[in-house]
Amino acid sequence: MIPVTKPYFPPIEKYQKYLSDIYQRQWLTNSGPLHQELTQRLEDYLGVQNLLLVSNGTLALQVAFKALGLQADGKVLTTPFTFAATPGALAWEGLKPVFSDICPKSFNLAAGTLPENGNFSAILGVHVFGNPCETQAIQAYADARQAKVIYDAAHAFGVTQKGKSVLCAGDASTLSFHATKLFHTVEGGAIVFRQREDFERAKQMINFGLDSHGIPQTIGINAKLSEVHAAMGLAVLDDIQRITERRLAIVNQYKLNLQGCVGFQHWQEGASINGAYMPVVLESEADINRCVKNLQEEQVYPRRYFYPSLNKAPAFYQQSDCSNSESLANRILCLPLYTDLSTQEVDRICHILKSGLSS
Amino acid sequence: MIPVTKPYFPPIEKYQKYLSDIYQRQWLTNSGPLHQELTQRLEDYLGVQNLLLVSNGTLALQVAFKALGLQADGKVLTTPFTFAATPGALAWEGLKPVFSDICPKSFNLAAGTLPENGNFSAILGVHVFGNPCETQAIQAYADARQAKVIYDAAHAFGVTQKGKSVLCAGDASTLSFHATKLFHTVEGGAIVFRQREDFERAKQMINFGLDSHGIPQTIGINAKLSEVHAAMGLAVLDDIQRITERRLAIVNQYKLNLQGCVGFQHWQEGASINGAYMPVVLESEADINRCVKNLQEEQVYPRRYFYPSLNKAPAFYQQSDCSNSESLANRILCLPLYTDLSTQEVDRICHILKSGLSS
Repeated sequence: MIPVTKPYFPPIEKYQKYLSDIYQRQWLTNSGPLHQELTQRLEDYLGVQNLLLVSNGTLALQVAFKALGLQADGKVLTTPFTFAATPGALAWEGLKPVFSDICPKSFNLAAGTLPENGNFSAILGVHVFGNPCETQAIQAYADARQAKVIYDAAHAFGVTQKGKSVLCAGDASTLSFHATKLFHTVEGGAIVFRQREDFERAKQMINFGLDSHGIPQTIGINAKLSEVHAAMGLAVLDDIQRITERRLAIVNQYKLNLQGCVGFQHWQEGASINGAYMPVVLESEADINRCVKNLQEEQVYPRRYFYPSLNKAPAFYQQSDCSNSESLANRILCLPLYTDLSTQEVDRICHILKSGLSS
Repeated sequence: MIPVTKPYFPPIEKYQKYLSDIYQRQWLTNSGPLHQELTQRLEDYLGVQNLLLVSNGTLALQVAFKALGLQADGKVLTTPFTFAATPGALAWEGLKPVFSDICPKSFNLAAGTLPENGNFSAILGVHVFGNPCETQAIQAYADARQAKVIYDAAHAFGVTQKGKSVLCAGDASTLSFHATKLFHTVEGGAIVFRQREDFERAKQMINFGLDSHGIPQTIGINAKLSEVHAAMGLAVLDDIQRITERRLAIVNQYKLNLQGCVGFQHWQEGASINGAYMPVVLESEADINRCVKNLQEEQVYPRRYFYPSLNKAPAFYQQSDCSNSESLANRILCLPLYTDLSTQEVDRICHILKSGLSS
């Protein structure tokens, strides 16, 4: 059975050594030494500052909205071509997601065609499948409206633009460290803030709003990453270069195999590729259905990701013109991608896929 | 050094065995087999149904509010004598906490003196230190106003009233399984719903609102408990009888030692005691300060828990009459309580404490 993704498991001896240390220190959560070490190592690896670890990638978004002071009922411009967590976090926090169509090439918000009218508290872009948005154009659009800019960078671990981390764009960027991600902490996430004061506010918010004397100074919740989860992150981070290299090799193999048969995402110029996903675009939904059926018959389970375009999903239904997103959502498939997927398996997947294409 | 609490650590061999199994199954999160096993075992142990595991006790409250349909801006009557998470979760979710004073004996909402006027969406009671609220009176009060009833039962793991779990009271009760709790999963929590349909709604909400086909049907977030955290819960649950017995023995030793010198919480008639906390009430704040100083000089670290009364905290300031809560908050101390606290240490703590009392 070949699933669309598999979590990466670092050597168990290493993880169990971390756990022995946790047992010895008797420190299980609440900003322990592993939490601190992971924060430092991620800041170094990613080339960022003001990185706050949190318990998952959706909470990262929720906390970012609150820390940046977005007020309830505020409209936030976002993309319909994303995972449910993006508009879900907005709506959960009392904000109103407004979908704007995507560019059919980059699969991201089409920076050039953002709505001329409308009063937005923020723009929430998504670097979908790790491909950076046109961050300069979005920043200019937001500046003209005094809106905040937040990026859901759940897919964009390690991506750089002209040598600089994509997480440096906007007022805040959020990461997901869910088990299925390129880098993971079992469950986890992080927020990278541009401003130190936003980071400090968020840090207090994820610990019940308490000050150093335990007095509640602001409204807060619990969004802390445990030592047990941070330990997994440290063990995975040791292998991140090998993980990334292997994933990129698989992506390249897919591309060589499928070139001319399927469509690929156009990557932002000057941006690095992290090998987070392997999306392919087919001619029609009929092709998708046929290929999925053929693959599943051979125990291969790709995913229709993202489907449907969220402006059409019951939870987020909007009568907006998102025809590019709808068309893409109907014709896109993410192929299996994980470190121990073999070259033979990739060849086999490509062979089955090609046999199901109409043209 | 004697802290106020210490996490319980089950045998490391047992925890590492669970982790080997997780490695073998390659299932790290998303309602895995350990998650399911823990749900079942907790329902059996606690004698409840409709128990939903979540990633922490604060998220348990947040999800319960949303699953029960509390609308933003709704007023919720609650107690000022609690941890910041109780009103914090309300305010984070856009609800308005309204504090009502406590009974100076039970330390809980004084059911007999709840405000006659005011339109409340819900009553959020807290079984503080594990002592059950007057649940029948609160239910009658809520019914007369068509308000929901929710209990923050973070402290009340395993408590029964006349043989029935205290978690059966109200529309929903929430538990915290934070590392410092009687029962823990490193970080974690649960919601127990009265109605199956509320449970089902919440279950969808904590997985991004997705239906079984992955289509977002409702607004949701990520509040899932990982397999790595569930494993800790299973290992701790094996020892829960021994943990509870040892804690109760310590509580009894404290009470024998301190009887007549300090005040104790009056426990609800017919309710079981779980040994979650060891609060003592002194004559004055001056006594508290003197005793804390004396104890700290001997490397004993009790906690002023809960201080301040939350109607006086900057995050939640209200000009309400909560004089019982304020008076109690100024004079209460939680003494060290954890399974491997020795009888000699308890005697020593009591000796130091008594030497600091004014009368």
